[in-house]
Amino acid sequence: MNDLEIRHAALSDVPAIVAMLADDPLGARRESPDDLTPYHAAFRRLADDQNQHLVVAVRDDQVVGTLQLTVVPGLSRRGSTRSIIEAVRIHAGERGSGLGTQLIQWAVDESRRQGCQLVQLTSDATRTDAHRFYERLGFTASHVGFKLTL
Amino acid sequence: MNDLEIRHAALSDVPAIVAMLADDPLGARRESPDDLTPYHAAFRRLADDQNQHLVVAVRDDQVVGTLQLTVVPGLSRRGSTRSIIEAVRIHAGERGSGLGTQLIQWAVDESRRQGCQLVQLTSDATRTDAHRFYERLGFTASHVGFKLTL
Repeated sequence: MNDLEIRHAALSDVPAIVAMLADDPLGARRESPDDLTPYHAAFRRLADDQNQHLVVAVRDDQVVGTLQLTVVPGLSRRGSTRSIIEAVRIHAGERGSGLGTQLIQWAVDESRRQGCQLVQLTSDATRTDAHRFYERLGFTASHVGFKLTL
Repeated sequence: MNDLEIRHAALSDVPAIVAMLADDPLGARRESPDDLTPYHAAFRRLADDQNQHLVVAVRDDQVVGTLQLTVVPGLSRRGSTRSIIEAVRIHAGERGSGLGTQLIQWAVDESRRQGCQLVQLTSDATRTDAHRFYERLGFTASHVGFKLTL
């Protein structure tokens, strides 16, 4: 495989990112790749927030992975800044290639660069393969993640 | 009990917030209320970020509760904005008074005002009383929360 680049997402990457969000057992039910209007609006909100890092992994000019990293300052743990990883997706043709590991490693390295002391994420309880993946990368499944839909 | 006010935290509230963070089975091991320097630096980072809402609950001029609400835009779920609740603490003298419910209700209402479609939080797996509390408030324990200390 050729070299991989991980870089901040551009507006022109939105269709490829949304296609990956939708190509997923959970995402298939909650995304609308045929109407990009809400995604473009969300992209602008992300671009305006310097604590947001929406990135894509690109190989051979193709977007093959994505994740969103949010930097969250806080008072807890002696004023620790933490980062939160969301929306990790790997293109179907790249699964098992080690790209997921590279993307998470990028997020961990970037979190260090941003001065974070902690990286956290939640994963749907049904994604048991993902849980093993994060544990292999050194994450600890110490918390329960709660959600409330408004 | 007298009226409760929930408002954005001021720099002068930091000692009371840190005292509550430290007065907790987990917080006791990871906070340093005798040295507020890192907390003051973190407070300034929070104040500079318009997507951060560090609030205190005040009764009779005393800080009796706190939480941090972070507004996170994103592409997932048709460009949904979500909010994340962190660092919920209730003063020992107020536990069982319903203040926790009022604070979380404030966070949910503020999330709606901010245009969020989802509110999420993680709670340490050992905090089983907190889990029942969040479920009573309508939250679903659908996720596993992973952390990596840097």
